[in-house]
Amino acid sequence: MTHTPGARRGASCDRDSSTAEGAASTAGDDMYQLILELFPLCRSITGQGTRQTLEALRSRIPISVRGVPSGSMVLDWVVPPEWNIRGAYIQEISGRRLVDFAESNLHVMGYSTPVHHVMPVSELREHLFSIPEHPSWIPYRTSYYQENWGFCVRDSLLQTLTDETYEVCIDSDLAPGTLRYGELLIPGSCDREVLISTHICHPSLCNDNLSGIALAVQLAAYFMARENRYSYRFLFVPATIGALAWLSQNEGRLNVVSHGLVLAGVGDSGNITYKKSRRADTPIDRAMHEVLARSGDVYNEVDFSPYGYDERQYCSPGFDLPVGTFTRTPYGAYPEYHTSADDLSFVQPESLQDSFDKTSQALLLLEADRTYVNLKPHGEPQLGRRGLFEAVRGGGDPRAIEMAMLWVLSLSDGATSILRIAERAKLAFESVCEAATALAEAGLLLETSGYGTD
Amino acid sequence: MTHTPGARRGASCDRDSSTAEGAASTAGDDMYQLILELFPLCRSITGQGTRQTLEALRSRIPISVRGVPSGSMVLDWVVPPEWNIRGAYIQEISGRRLVDFAESNLHVMGYSTPVHHVMPVSELREHLFSIPEHPSWIPYRTSYYQENWGFCVRDSLLQTLTDETYEVCIDSDLAPGTLRYGELLIPGSCDREVLISTHICHPSLCNDNLSGIALAVQLAAYFMARENRYSYRFLFVPATIGALAWLSQNEGRLNVVSHGLVLAGVGDSGNITYKKSRRADTPIDRAMHEVLARSGDVYNEVDFSPYGYDERQYCSPGFDLPVGTFTRTPYGAYPEYHTSADDLSFVQPESLQDSFDKTSQALLLLEADRTYVNLKPHGEPQLGRRGLFEAVRGGGDPRAIEMAMLWVLSLSDGATSILRIAERAKLAFESVCEAATALAEAGLLLETSGYGTD
Amino acid sequence: MTHTPGARRGASCDRDSSTAEGAASTAGDDMYQLILELFPLCRSITGQGTRQTLEALRSRIPISVRGVPSGSMVLDWVVPPEWNIRGAYIQEISGRRLVDFAESNLHVMGYSTPVHHVMPVSELREHLFSIPEHPSWIPYRTSYYQENWGFCVRDSLLQTLTDETYEVCIDSDLAPGTLRYGELLIPGSCDREVLISTHICHPSLCNDNLSGIALAVQLAAYFMARENRYSYRFLFVPATIGALAWLSQNEGRLNVVSHGLVLAGVGDSGNITYKKSRRADTPIDRAMHEVLARSGDVYNEVDFSPYGYDERQYCSPGFDLPVGTFTRTPYGAYPEYHTSADDLSFVQPESLQDSFDKTSQALLLLEADRTYVNLKPHGEPQLGRRGLFEAVRGGGDPRAIEMAMLWVLSLSDGATSILRIAERAKLAFESVCEAATALAEAGLLLETSGYGTD
Repeated sequence: MTHTPGARRGASCDRDSSTAEGAASTAGDDMYQLILELFPLCRSITGQGTRQTLEALRSRIPISVRGVPSGSMVLDWVVPPEWNIRGAYIQEISGRRLVDFAESNLHVMGYSTPVHHVMPVSELREHLFSIPEHPSWIPYRTSYYQENWGFCVRDSLLQTLTDETYEVCIDSDLAPGTLRYGELLIPGSCDREVLISTHICHPSLCNDNLSGIALAVQLAAYFMARENRYSYRFLFVPATIGALAWLSQNEGRLNVVSHGLVLAGVGDSGNITYKKSRRADTPIDRAMHEVLARSGDVYNEVDFSPYGYDERQYCSPGFDLPVGTFTRTPYGAYPEYHTSADDLSFVQPESLQDSFDKTSQALLLLEADRTYVNLKPHGEPQLGRRGLFEAVRGGGDPRAIEMAMLWVLSLSDGATSILRIAERAKLAFESVCEAATALAEAGLLLETSGYGTD
Repeated sequence: MTHTPGARRGASCDRDSSTAEGAASTAGDDMYQLILELFPLCRSITGQGTRQTLEALRSRIPISVRGVPSGSMVLDWVVPPEWNIRGAYIQEISGRRLVDFAESNLHVMGYSTPVHHVMPVSELREHLFSIPEHPSWIPYRTSYYQENWGFCVRDSLLQTLTDETYEVCIDSDLAPGTLRYGELLIPGSCDREVLISTHICHPSLCNDNLSGIALAVQLAAYFMARENRYSYRFLFVPATIGALAWLSQNEGRLNVVSHGLVLAGVGDSGNITYKKSRRADTPIDRAMHEVLARSGDVYNEVDFSPYGYDERQYCSPGFDLPVGTFTRTPYGAYPEYHTSADDLSFVQPESLQDSFDKTSQALLLLEADRTYVNLKPHGEPQLGRRGLFEAVRGGGDPRAIEMAMLWVLSLSDGATSILRIAERAKLAFESVCEAATALAEAGLLLETSGYGTD
Repeated sequence: MTHTPGARRGASCDRDSSTAEGAASTAGDDMYQLILELFPLCRSITGQGTRQTLEALRSRIPISVRGVPSGSMVLDWVVPPEWNIRGAYIQEISGRRLVDFAESNLHVMGYSTPVHHVMPVSELREHLFSIPEHPSWIPYRTSYYQENWGFCVRDSLLQTLTDETYEVCIDSDLAPGTLRYGELLIPGSCDREVLISTHICHPSLCNDNLSGIALAVQLAAYFMARENRYSYRFLFVPATIGALAWLSQNEGRLNVVSHGLVLAGVGDSGNITYKKSRRADTPIDRAMHEVLARSGDVYNEVDFSPYGYDERQYCSPGFDLPVGTFTRTPYGAYPEYHTSADDLSFVQPESLQDSFDKTSQALLLLEADRTYVNLKPHGEPQLGRRGLFEAVRGGGDPRAIEMAMLWVLSLSDGATSILRIAERAKLAFESVCEAATALAEAGLLLETSGYGTD
């Protein structure tokens, strides 16, 4: 069975990843290629590298690039100046370069103010950041909202700074400009939206978060290639300020967001970690649980906490959107996090593929989920008279489908979705979906305006 | 102490099975005798054997036999034609009989259409059912709602069918007739009813469900011999269609059903399995739990599922009656289920007795259960001044009764029954019942219209 | 850090017992001194010894002594006559005294009617109570509400009663008089009250309940020496009848009671047992849980039951006050309970100190607890712009405080107190309190009328 784009049945019960065709089966490799392409760019929450990243994405999926001027209020925040950097170095008075931005864009603390001085080594040292535990790694640091400058260096360098003075140069500027983010809406047969958000503000770091960008692009391509019930909105935003900007510009219509995922850190070899939405029992939480629990893979499910990625904004109490967070190893739980060791060798096509499979499966499950009311609730309806035993016996295990039909009839009260019924009955979602479809076609169920309804 | 029929106190706190007199103490043997008597009859959902079965029951308890004509709609179902069978066989052309209905009424698939042909063995084989794992057992099969015929045979027979043709005869008819079920109402001092239902449509099978029939008869005799608060309604119905028929004829007055039990498979040597009502926390569920938990016996308590016996109908969402299901080993969980091995040796008087004891205890507990409101809720009432310490010290453990009085006073809010209080306080129901009765007599409690109220 | 009396910040987040100054650090010794002083008095629910006890307390804290005349109705109870006793003995006809009230006031059953007879040993024996398992201990017995007399004696005495007759004298009287209890109100900045109650009716028994009296006095002195948000009401009442008397006189204003503790048996060397209020999840229950869980000590938390100390009255269903019960080893769970072995060696200053520390910590936690509503719930507020990272970095772990700020912002919905937030976030109450204070000062939170509000 394959997911034919434009498939006839809106309530298709398929969600097996083996059904994804074309792009889906090579998703891991495609995602890795995109990571390779974007790796060199020096992204930040604003500036040239971020603009170039959005342009590169636009060559794959038709995102719109939105701009918000520096100084704008977005909810409680002020959009900062735009930051651009051309080069930076630390060198001996002799001219020998010790640190060069050209070698790694991690070397300069994000949003460093311009500086060009010969300064005593003691003054310089106050602006140097390193990782003693990993002397050959360069840390990643920013100072977006507090003016400062700094260099992130290998700890091994610090021992060699024996001169009295060094020449220090950061050729950057902070000036009124534009905060940019990318947005793509894939219209479905209903206006209810699935929100997929990923942050784009990190420089040459692969897992955090070129992997999330690549997964979002892959999912966008996948859902563009099929007919969907839901509309899908993809956001490529600078962390925090970008999410806030989008929320501030869409505050009046957030009620259309039925489900959502924040994607980040999806390419490392660790197990999947799913962090639930603040409401903790929304359909995306249950769909993700279903997919993970049935996968046979080891995984972590964690409760919402108000620290992390942009779920901090989407799930803030005033919005409280049904948005979960999909990562592999959580931020901060791997030593390579926010260091130069989060490089092209730290992410693997296989992990990226698995992340694509799991997220797409969960979303397809929500595509297929429905809520019904039993129209013949007094006693069991006579299924045999309606040919329902035969109807479903073409498919899978007839006893499983018969059980599924009885459970659907027992629990379909107009508020309990078939995903919930599958959980309660401890049956495969597909069986329950198939049973419900057959019962609905026989006129025994009426679809109701649960969350999964057009 | 004995349960004197016509005992003065409606709210008797006794429920010890040792108090059951006369019939109760020999219940297991009496039930086994009834099974012996009914075993030979060829029951089905309609027909002669079922009519004879109801007549046999009427010689013990004064049931009414209700009839519903073939073709009637009962809820979503159509009452099928009446099936009668006089004989059936498979024989060699030589006249040697290989299979004969006269030997076992299980040999013919229930509702087999008439047939009398000499047919090729290949055609015959399509109509033979056997159990390869148990080659000497005859399976039990029916085809009520789809016209067909068949023989259920020992698997060992199949190897011997080496002839090219056989004479096959089923002397049955399917014709407009009557669906019959038995009903007995034992009026109590209030109109609220306890519904006891058991299916009567199985031929020579003992545990499923002559045991259920025997238990229902025994309980009926027991409750006829005492004065009850509740009215007791016993139903002896063909499975599914009989329950649906009764529900359809009583749809407007089902709100009188306060508690109920479906009885089936109560004579085997396995542990008791109690399947909760769909609402899962009704008084019958809690009473059964109390009896089983205090019994010291191993037992299983399982959640409702929409497959099983006639609880499928009583607990369908449109009715959702507070009806649990009492069995020993559940259907399908023993190899003898629906085979000729479910015979007179598969059920034991001891198991039947135990099933009677447990079900009657649970029902007596509901007879005694009450809901009160504390009329002196501000501080403790002065129990000593009212002689309450002495009042109860005639009985059991005075400290237990004092604790029970304090718990009853603390929790009697007009909605919490004494059964719930006993659970919460982890005290014996009898102590709590005795305490509550004493407090009510002292004017400290007022009985309220909880489910247990007249 | 010290708790300066009259500290400026109402919402101080300190609750470390090391901060208690002066009296607090020597609390255990002070409490033991008071126990020493009160030990000899013959207390009962009325009478001279109880009056003297209240006078002794008045020399330490400014309690008012309230009187209720014998014969008054207090709720459902009648105030009994006042009981006074001057002496009592059992002696041989020869004049040799075997039992003398002067040796131990436990020797006479409380509320014994006067008697002076030479009586047969058989009659005397009916009025003797002893403890066979502990032949050298004197039991403690009373008969307040049923006229009787008795002697409580060492079991070893019984063997020596070989004479035919003995002279028996109890020089007591039961006459109309006064039931007395002590009450102290320490006004706080709001009218909401914390109720601390302890029973004063036991004669020379140390743990039950001179220890409770001593702890209540110590807490009263402690809270008198600081400025409090809550008003604190201390009750020194004869058990049951005294609590009922106070409740009956204050029935119309009990809604001011926000939190409460019954104190009893707080000086033995056992672990702390906290018995929850009947409502089971009130702030005092959670505060006590927080203190105990974080203490590192072994402790027991038990559900409410309607037997025990005066929580029986405060938590009776008509009042249902949020009052927990703080003891060490529970009543009846140590053999010395209600015997002469509950003497000055059975209680230790260290245990008394620990009881003071834990109860005062829980009450200080409630002093500091607040409920807020997030005024910027749409997205995260920009904490850095408001200097909030710096504001709190003067204090403890900045990451912990940042996490605490995010949790407070996420969960402050106007109904969830910071104590609840600390529990949910698994953070120290102090961190959450400090974070909330900083956020409130920055105008991001508004205090609401949760239970912790003025």
